[in-house]
Amino acid sequence: MSDPRFDSVTPPTNPEKYQTEWQPLVAKKQQECADKIPSEWRLSQSLLDSLALDSAHGVDLIEADIPRKSGLLSPLELDLTENYTARELLAQLAAGTVTSVAVTTAFCKRAAIAQQLTSCLTETFFPAALERAQHADDHLKRTGTTLGPLHGLPISIKDCFNVKGLQATIGYVSLLAVPPATANSAIVDLLLDLGAVLYVKTNIPQTMMTADSENNIFGRTLNPHNTRLTAGGSTGGEGALIAFRGSILGVGSDVAGSIRIPALCCGVYGFKPSADRVPPAGQALKRKTGLARIIASAGPLAQTLDDIELFLSTVLADGHQPWSYDVTALAVPWNSSLVAAPARTLTVGVPAEDPWFPLHPPVRRTLETAIANLERKGHRVVRLPAPETEEHTLAYANRLALQFFIYGPSHDYIGDSGEPTIASVAQRSSPVFTGPLPVDMALEPFEKMHLLHTAREAYAEYWRKTWVEHRLDIILGPGAQNTAVPHDTYGWPPYTLAWNLLNYPACIIPFGRASKELDPEPFAVSDGVQPSYDPESMDKAPCAIQLIAPTLQDEKCLWAAKIIDRDIRE
Amino acid sequence: MSDPRFDSVTPPTNPEKYQTEWQPLVAKKQQECADKIPSEWRLSQSLLDSLALDSAHGVDLIEADIPRKSGLLSPLELDLTENYTARELLAQLAAGTVTSVAVTTAFCKRAAIAQQLTSCLTETFFPAALERAQHADDHLKRTGTTLGPLHGLPISIKDCFNVKGLQATIGYVSLLAVPPATANSAIVDLLLDLGAVLYVKTNIPQTMMTADSENNIFGRTLNPHNTRLTAGGSTGGEGALIAFRGSILGVGSDVAGSIRIPALCCGVYGFKPSADRVPPAGQALKRKTGLARIIASAGPLAQTLDDIELFLSTVLADGHQPWSYDVTALAVPWNSSLVAAPARTLTVGVPAEDPWFPLHPPVRRTLETAIANLERKGHRVVRLPAPETEEHTLAYANRLALQFFIYGPSHDYIGDSGEPTIASVAQRSSPVFTGPLPVDMALEPFEKMHLLHTAREAYAEYWRKTWVEHRLDIILGPGAQNTAVPHDTYGWPPYTLAWNLLNYPACIIPFGRASKELDPEPFAVSDGVQPSYDPESMDKAPCAIQLIAPTLQDEKCLWAAKIIDRDIRE
Repeated sequence: MSDPRFDSVTPPTNPEKYQTEWQPLVAKKQQECADKIPSEWRLSQSLLDSLALDSAHGVDLIEADIPRKSGLLSPLELDLTENYTARELLAQLAAGTVTSVAVTTAFCKRAAIAQQLTSCLTETFFPAALERAQHADDHLKRTGTTLGPLHGLPISIKDCFNVKGLQATIGYVSLLAVPPATANSAIVDLLLDLGAVLYVKTNIPQTMMTADSENNIFGRTLNPHNTRLTAGGSTGGEGALIAFRGSILGVGSDVAGSIRIPALCCGVYGFKPSADRVPPAGQALKRKTGLARIIASAGPLAQTLDDIELFLSTVLADGHQPWSYDVTALAVPWNSSLVAAPARTLTVGVPAEDPWFPLHPPVRRTLETAIANLERKGHRVVRLPAPETEEHTLAYANRLALQFFIYGPSHDYIGDSGEPTIASVAQRSSPVFTGPLPVDMALEPFEKMHLLHTAREAYAEYWRKTWVEHRLDIILGPGAQNTAVPHDTYGWPPYTLAWNLLNYPACIIPFGRASKELDPEPFAVSDGVQPSYDPESMDKAPCAIQLIAPTLQDEKCLWAAKIIDRDIRE
Repeated sequence: MSDPRFDSVTPPTNPEKYQTEWQPLVAKKQQECADKIPSEWRLSQSLLDSLALDSAHGVDLIEADIPRKSGLLSPLELDLTENYTARELLAQLAAGTVTSVAVTTAFCKRAAIAQQLTSCLTETFFPAALERAQHADDHLKRTGTTLGPLHGLPISIKDCFNVKGLQATIGYVSLLAVPPATANSAIVDLLLDLGAVLYVKTNIPQTMMTADSENNIFGRTLNPHNTRLTAGGSTGGEGALIAFRGSILGVGSDVAGSIRIPALCCGVYGFKPSADRVPPAGQALKRKTGLARIIASAGPLAQTLDDIELFLSTVLADGHQPWSYDVTALAVPWNSSLVAAPARTLTVGVPAEDPWFPLHPPVRRTLETAIANLERKGHRVVRLPAPETEEHTLAYANRLALQFFIYGPSHDYIGDSGEPTIASVAQRSSPVFTGPLPVDMALEPFEKMHLLHTAREAYAEYWRKTWVEHRLDIILGPGAQNTAVPHDTYGWPPYTLAWNLLNYPACIIPFGRASKELDPEPFAVSDGVQPSYDPESMDKAPCAIQLIAPTLQDEKCLWAAKIIDRDIRE
């Protein structure tokens, strides 16, 4: 997943062919997508008008309680989508006290409403989902057994994954020419084998390398907490949909923060596993393989940490052998006993704030509240010293990560169609305002890769030593400098990307809210890249903390996250 | 570990400097090494003469029972080195019924004898080992507790690992100029932390990329079963030393068969784990990193499968956190419960013999005997069909693997000193007699790596599908076409290397012997690369089978190996 933003080399392949053609292609696709929302699930124009979505002020769609007001959902459907975790729904589904058709209908309707308000979906396939749900119900009735541990549960999935019979354009106009997928992604096959019901694919940004989930086909995903703020990206559709409770469990991917940024923007939980634990095979774009790179992870977003655990412990269970679906998936089964280890006093490392990437007041306030609460509960918090050498800083790590994205060959999927570049991509945000790229770009490929790899290993070694020296159980830090910010201002994601560089698992836990009362002073960031804090615009935006553990210690990360998620609350 | 044999590009860096100087440098080193063997541990000239090691006939040093005949070992020392597994010795050491000084002395003496007969050692450090053993004994006496689970056990280690205060020349004259190591390899630190005693480093071939463990510094390692046969390589010193019972447990490394080839040549057990489970950091040569490559694995050789398990389950135990020693070590703890799973009827896949690499009669006979015995015990043996496409053949996989070794930059450590290239390296054996290299070598690096990676992934996908389709528990095949063969005739290692290409764990189990009575017909291989079978030369050479499981399923490999090791015996 190289980043075309930084690629000034590859020219558009065939600009003439598409430049005048892209709009009709898009209009056709948009119409097809709109037609798939049943008319009886459409919001009334009067309700839409009452929300004034186009006004200068942001709308809190969650507070506005549209699903209830719309009258489209029955009381049972409101109850099913609002009052249970995925685990609780699964228990009811397995017991037969609720049908998959009922649950799936409820989430299909609510997702359809979310789509009309936030553009969080790409492909919808409600009829196929309901057919699958009926199959699950029939199976249970006939055999008395479930289809599997995810029996009848609707799960949403990011557009980049392939679902048989559907396109995976990931918002590129040029990919509209690609016929629907003839095979499922490995994770899709696995989820289906486990009994799940898929029903929607979710929106992403053009390039999947920016925190604004906007593209020329499916539009811009809005943050349901405040429509003037970004929903984050690149798994922004999932973030918005889950926050709206149009999905109870979703699958995203993360190479720089793409699960965690939408989670922190939308106030939901997001877990980026170590790479290649959740089977990654069969996604929309084939990238150049075999090159030193940062590997994207697939992982879950959900309303609760327990549902994050449900997803990981089910999908990665030894009995389900995810690696038998995908040669790239690691045969490292989920070790439930590590997650179930008794809670105890943790040693929590808190990295020093990088002066290049200062935290916004609400982010710092909620982080410090979390830390104080943990200390009060008896956990040992270690304020890690600022790195003594430049090569160990967050700024350096981000420049190194950037270089991993841009040093190799890439393909210009935007240029292929002549579609315009979206605003947040056109900005070409980067961390080079903090210093130069670590490795001379003019070096020959082998040498360049060797130096990139060596630099990364040195950074990893710094963290290994830090971990061992302080006997850390977990690292606690911000997920970003900021909360959700006004559209097209998110900038570069330093606090998520550094952990991708190290392939460390990381988890976003929503905690607190921005508040113009508690954080009344604006905070100007003048680097020309990163967003400033404006108390008015960001008022009530969700805040979050991030928990991080070393590579492949996903279970330890989740174990500690569960303790911390409990102990940061009063 | 790129292979200079195939690198015709890099010229010697400074031939003039060394060409006339290398012999005195070597002579000095050899004298230093010889001086470290205490005179009281030297074999008498009359005993040596009686063996006629230089005669045209090979000598069976094991049958000759030199340690007993030499009079250098006490009855207790003979007993300690001959009649116990490592696990049994550890139990005695922990119980205090035998001291580490006694055990260490016994193995030091026996290793010194092995060295005089087979040139299996490089660096010896008997005084430091005995000091360490004394420390272990004192600690146990003083505290009543052991130093750790490997308390007081002598363990041998391949020359490529660094031990503080010792050189790691890996047989390159040019590396004689490198001062002794100032830090231990990660695995050395870990073994010491677990209580082990190190006492010798073991011999390897020049380049570590041939099956003849010969170099211009430490000479040629002889096979103790028959001194006219190779001990295998590149962990040949370990193979010979353990077969001679001069070590009870040794550590090697394997990127093409370097643990398994000495194991099968010397009739001992050898286990190549998945890469980066046993911490690899801190070895003699720094290679160009960040390039698509085949990753070498560190792993054990031993006299029993139980001691293989002892090593892996101890070194990789979650409680010992090997990954905290080494950023490259995977945080995948040893899962003892998988190995302890009840024995059951296995589904055993047997790959079709590749016509390019026909098996020698004793290898085929013992393999078929093993298969017949397994079937008699009720296991289901699946004869896997021959691949239908060239890209799935063993021959193709080996050409692909060769290309991984040679496509990138390499350094000519031989040319650095002007030392001569040893015979088995000079042969430049390769599998290209079976067809061309898979990828055009003239392509630019990124494209070349992409195509190499893609080809490997396709081969892995073929094996994934094979595994799933046949519901295999384990693959059973030969470890080589041949047994140990006369020096400098081993050729290319197709049956071990293919599993390195896939990063599959693999285990060598000794089984049976070549026999001029049972396999009386010579078998000529006329490809100009691979060895022929000569009943007389190879008579009584150990035979072996190889067991293979998918990547990271090391525990499953060992679980199945234990069942099979039991059930192939009458």
